[in-house]
Amino acid sequence: MKRKIYLHMKPLYEAQKIFLNAWDWKKALAQEDIPVKEARGRITAQPIFAKRSLPGFNSAAMDGIAVRAEDTFGASEANPLLLQIGKQAFLVNTGEPLPEGTNAVIMIEHVHFIKEDLVEIRSPVYPWQHVRRIGEDVVQGEMLFTEGHRLSAWDLGVLLASGYLTVTVRAKPRVIFIPTGDELVLPEEAEGEIPFGKTVEFNSTMLAALVEEWGGEAEIFPIVRDNYVELKKAVEKAASRKPHLIALIAGSSAGSKDYTAALIEEEGKLLVHGIQMMPGKPVVLGLVQNTPIIGVPGYPVSAVLAFEQMVRPVFEAMYGARIPRRPKVKAVSGCKIPSKLGVTEFLRVKAGKVGTQTVFLPLKRGAGAITTLTRADAIVRISSESEGLLQGAECEIELLRPEKDLAKTILVVGSHDLALDILAQFLRQKELGLELSTAHVGSLSGLMAIKDGLAHMAGTHLFDPETGEFNVPYIKRYLPETPVRLINFVYREQGLILPPGNPKGIRDLRDLAQKEVTFINRQPGSGTRVLLDYHLQKIGVSPREIQGYEVEETTHLGVAINVATGQADVGLGIRAAAKLLNLEFIPLFKERYDLLIRLDFYESPFFKVLQEVLTDPAFKKAVENLGGYDTSEMGKIIL
Amino acid sequence: MKRKIYLHMKPLYEAQKIFLNAWDWKKALAQEDIPVKEARGRITAQPIFAKRSLPGFNSAAMDGIAVRAEDTFGASEANPLLLQIGKQAFLVNTGEPLPEGTNAVIMIEHVHFIKEDLVEIRSPVYPWQHVRRIGEDVVQGEMLFTEGHRLSAWDLGVLLASGYLTVTVRAKPRVIFIPTGDELVLPEEAEGEIPFGKTVEFNSTMLAALVEEWGGEAEIFPIVRDNYVELKKAVEKAASRKPHLIALIAGSSAGSKDYTAALIEEEGKLLVHGIQMMPGKPVVLGLVQNTPIIGVPGYPVSAVLAFEQMVRPVFEAMYGARIPRRPKVKAVSGCKIPSKLGVTEFLRVKAGKVGTQTVFLPLKRGAGAITTLTRADAIVRISSESEGLLQGAECEIELLRPEKDLAKTILVVGSHDLALDILAQFLRQKELGLELSTAHVGSLSGLMAIKDGLAHMAGTHLFDPETGEFNVPYIKRYLPETPVRLINFVYREQGLILPPGNPKGIRDLRDLAQKEVTFINRQPGSGTRVLLDYHLQKIGVSPREIQGYEVEETTHLGVAINVATGQADVGLGIRAAAKLLNLEFIPLFKERYDLLIRLDFYESPFFKVLQEVLTDPAFKKAVENLGGYDTSEMGKIIL
Repeated sequence: MKRKIYLHMKPLYEAQKIFLNAWDWKKALAQEDIPVKEARGRITAQPIFAKRSLPGFNSAAMDGIAVRAEDTFGASEANPLLLQIGKQAFLVNTGEPLPEGTNAVIMIEHVHFIKEDLVEIRSPVYPWQHVRRIGEDVVQGEMLFTEGHRLSAWDLGVLLASGYLTVTVRAKPRVIFIPTGDELVLPEEAEGEIPFGKTVEFNSTMLAALVEEWGGEAEIFPIVRDNYVELKKAVEKAASRKPHLIALIAGSSAGSKDYTAALIEEEGKLLVHGIQMMPGKPVVLGLVQNTPIIGVPGYPVSAVLAFEQMVRPVFEAMYGARIPRRPKVKAVSGCKIPSKLGVTEFLRVKAGKVGTQTVFLPLKRGAGAITTLTRADAIVRISSESEGLLQGAECEIELLRPEKDLAKTILVVGSHDLALDILAQFLRQKELGLELSTAHVGSLSGLMAIKDGLAHMAGTHLFDPETGEFNVPYIKRYLPETPVRLINFVYREQGLILPPGNPKGIRDLRDLAQKEVTFINRQPGSGTRVLLDYHLQKIGVSPREIQGYEVEETTHLGVAINVATGQADVGLGIRAAAKLLNLEFIPLFKERYDLLIRLDFYESPFFKVLQEVLTDPAFKKAVENLGGYDTSEMGKIIL
Repeated sequence: MKRKIYLHMKPLYEAQKIFLNAWDWKKALAQEDIPVKEARGRITAQPIFAKRSLPGFNSAAMDGIAVRAEDTFGASEANPLLLQIGKQAFLVNTGEPLPEGTNAVIMIEHVHFIKEDLVEIRSPVYPWQHVRRIGEDVVQGEMLFTEGHRLSAWDLGVLLASGYLTVTVRAKPRVIFIPTGDELVLPEEAEGEIPFGKTVEFNSTMLAALVEEWGGEAEIFPIVRDNYVELKKAVEKAASRKPHLIALIAGSSAGSKDYTAALIEEEGKLLVHGIQMMPGKPVVLGLVQNTPIIGVPGYPVSAVLAFEQMVRPVFEAMYGARIPRRPKVKAVSGCKIPSKLGVTEFLRVKAGKVGTQTVFLPLKRGAGAITTLTRADAIVRISSESEGLLQGAECEIELLRPEKDLAKTILVVGSHDLALDILAQFLRQKELGLELSTAHVGSLSGLMAIKDGLAHMAGTHLFDPETGEFNVPYIKRYLPETPVRLINFVYREQGLILPPGNPKGIRDLRDLAQKEVTFINRQPGSGTRVLLDYHLQKIGVSPREIQGYEVEETTHLGVAINVATGQADVGLGIRAAAKLLNLEFIPLFKERYDLLIRLDFYESPFFKVLQEVLTDPAFKKAVENLGGYDTSEMGKIIL
């Protein structure tokens, strides 16, 4: 099987530079004259000089009387002066031209009318007082705007005032999109059922909307099947329309049906294939028939992020102006986030307000899930020179929604439980649309996150061997001064997770010490590990007797997968994990899984919504259906 | 003369609250179904639930072979497994559906082809490895968006994918603008010469552009003359169109032709007349014929700022969503800025980067000058509870242009000189469009601003009595460790500014001690004051002998105006100030006016542009035309 590979992956900044330098973007856009009234957001194509002065005449800046300042120089409280209306003084309203011979305005509030046509003044005024002088605002011939200026609403005002009805701006960049792929159907063809194995083509709509957001115009070609000849024809047709950019969607990777790179190499000039960014690696950049072309990855998140990183800079080069950026705020990471050295990662995160600080947690990293963008509150860029972020690390995050809406994200850091995912689903249905964002760091780290203000809630099931109690002793020991509440979430069965049929006949913890049995363990600090160690000691089994004791997973599902794939013969975990992978389960203990809640969050209106869910029978039912859950004390206040 | 007055001026927040509560804005907008493809930026009018799951089938997340995971459980390096292509293993590309019976994908990179139809694998895979499962991204029926959500480019993607071709959004708010004023002409009527005393009507274009920026639709009525009956007719006609808001432009003040408040009071309900904000005081809010109405001030800057403060919140109330805000950054004030207690002030400022910090200086405060908005880099909101900002005070500023463009603003804090204004004009003509922003705080404060990183340059003319030298001794004393350059800007004549005809026959500094002579002084720390004190001491005249010595102005022009208005008989200042007001001038000394420059700015490309201007004969000529200037050493490096 012949396979293409990425020959020379480029770092992100280098790929951007190559694309910027491969084409004379600065001269790509024509100029056009458009009515000033329609010019908001457009970019000036040349410097603009005022055609006339502003104001064009000396005018009153206040309502009052216009006078010759020199006539008033003698006036004082002791020596008031009388002025004749119509001769030395003239009533003027704001904005009206000064009568010939006058050069100052006295505010109407300071004028004493003796008669209808006679006023008294008691202090002098200096020349040009309360007068808007010719050219005070704009002098004819002075530059109003440089080339490459983005016109605001008020810029239109100064253009009209200084003599412009039309303005010379850069034409809009035009992008032609060619969606490709045998599996694609148009959204219009798939309103009811989608044929099996087909996918709705929506990348072109998203990217076209971005082009419009950036001030360009997009045209979308019909879907092209995975066929070199058809693709070539479509690209040629697109190039003949002389767009500023052609974007092929999908087919930019290295699969057997990915023709983009080969096509550009054979028909034009291939500049880049593969970028060290994540998501967004499978990007192709090149020139075909004197037209810049980009091959965009087919995964929607990759498509959006790669398009933004590669195309926004060339739009800016064409404009000679910056495209407004998303606002940035400082925030801290609620958990440890490793990232691959040498790759620029664009992490989609949920962000919330914990006390006064903004905290974020990563969403799933898969580039196929568009909801990792639509649900994201922000994007965190992790430099290619970084190996990731530590828990509590501060960095800048790019906001995707108004900062105020971050209040709607509830951050849960601690031990993971599948029922939390159900809770997230139920919260999302509520009118407020609360989002629950979770990070799985183990119970003890969850407690620390509450202490450090890195989460609203922590899921915890820490068993204390000395008292035989769950959670409370740990909270008293580690968070003696943090204002918190502890409520019960669920009780759940912990037990042995075994392959179907239990081939080695394992019955209890004692059997873990058998020679032919391989165990898979959980990490220290996890509630399950504490429970295991306690019971092993109780029955007098030493860890050294257990094969695999030192091999650790960090989730229940991870343990179950080890058992399912035969890497281990047995693990300790919750029933729901076993059920999910159709494994056998022998219940051993019942453990209490509680929610530790920061007091300020507990007292917020958002927690009220969460409480409603906890008392909803439909929610309890859904949790119990997971298997091995007891919800009878859900919501009970423990501490 | 009968005059209206503002009876009950309201604080800004109170006016906003009154307007928000006076109308059921939440129900004002209808719903409409629009194509998803055109919905970017629109606001959802109801919660939106997924019509189908995403992905709709289990599909390969990688290029490779699809297998049944259970078939691979025995595989290891020691015990490789063989799988038959077409029977146990199936070639799949990313995105393709998994063949019936398979539940995992092995990456093509990990597959060893033995024959065309036989592959070897050396490790097991677990179920659903590299598989995108049904509903992994979106589960049918789950909420995608709450009501009041602004749709982004990628939101359109998830809508199309989950079964929507149209989406229910809020209709666009419609605003009808009625420009009023006898002095107004349409821009189209004024392309050549404007009739004397007439003003181009451009407020409606600016405000309509704002309405469009906020997602609404604007209609502009013909100009209405200052006539109660005509205005009433126009408002009735507007109300009959059932807009969401009517905006009367101008006529909202308390002048003799300001009918807005009276009209609303008589025909409907007057809610507010006058707001404690600056600019933007003359605002009228009310209801007429069951339609909210706003009277907007006629001064363009007031119009924009008042409209933004009053109308954006009601748009947000109608949408149930926030309108994106301008980005904010932290910055420090380069000079002291007093502000009136009890009034919320919106200061337009120039902002620049000095070293690593962002520094701002206020533009002119006049609300009539639209360039105080078009030239502004940012807006600073000064709370009604504040008396202003101290030099160096930190606050948040709202950026009106990309942060990167702030590099183009050169901040000059120090002694003022009229030639700086000419320099600003010349710089503005340069291709880079550099802006010079100045604050007049006196020479010594200018030196301190350089030291504290609050300015790029300072204009200074500090005479040192001990050495007889200008500037250098002060710099050595006060900035021994700050890296700076000092270059000459101009030499200028200082002398006595006198009324035309010099009625009191003053000839030199000795005459200031005459009993019948009133002097006007400059503030301590200004170069002119230092010079005065030095020469008075030299000739043995005591300050106590001089009437008016304790009365201070902070600019040359301020001194000249005192003389022109008869408040003083004589002042000390530069010739250009006397010339500007047609006053007499007796030259006494020649002083050196230098520019003190931060070294990092001196070495920047922007300073190169400034240097070009300093060697431009046209610039020197323009400066000399001010009167009393010697430019022969302009640009010479002194330190």
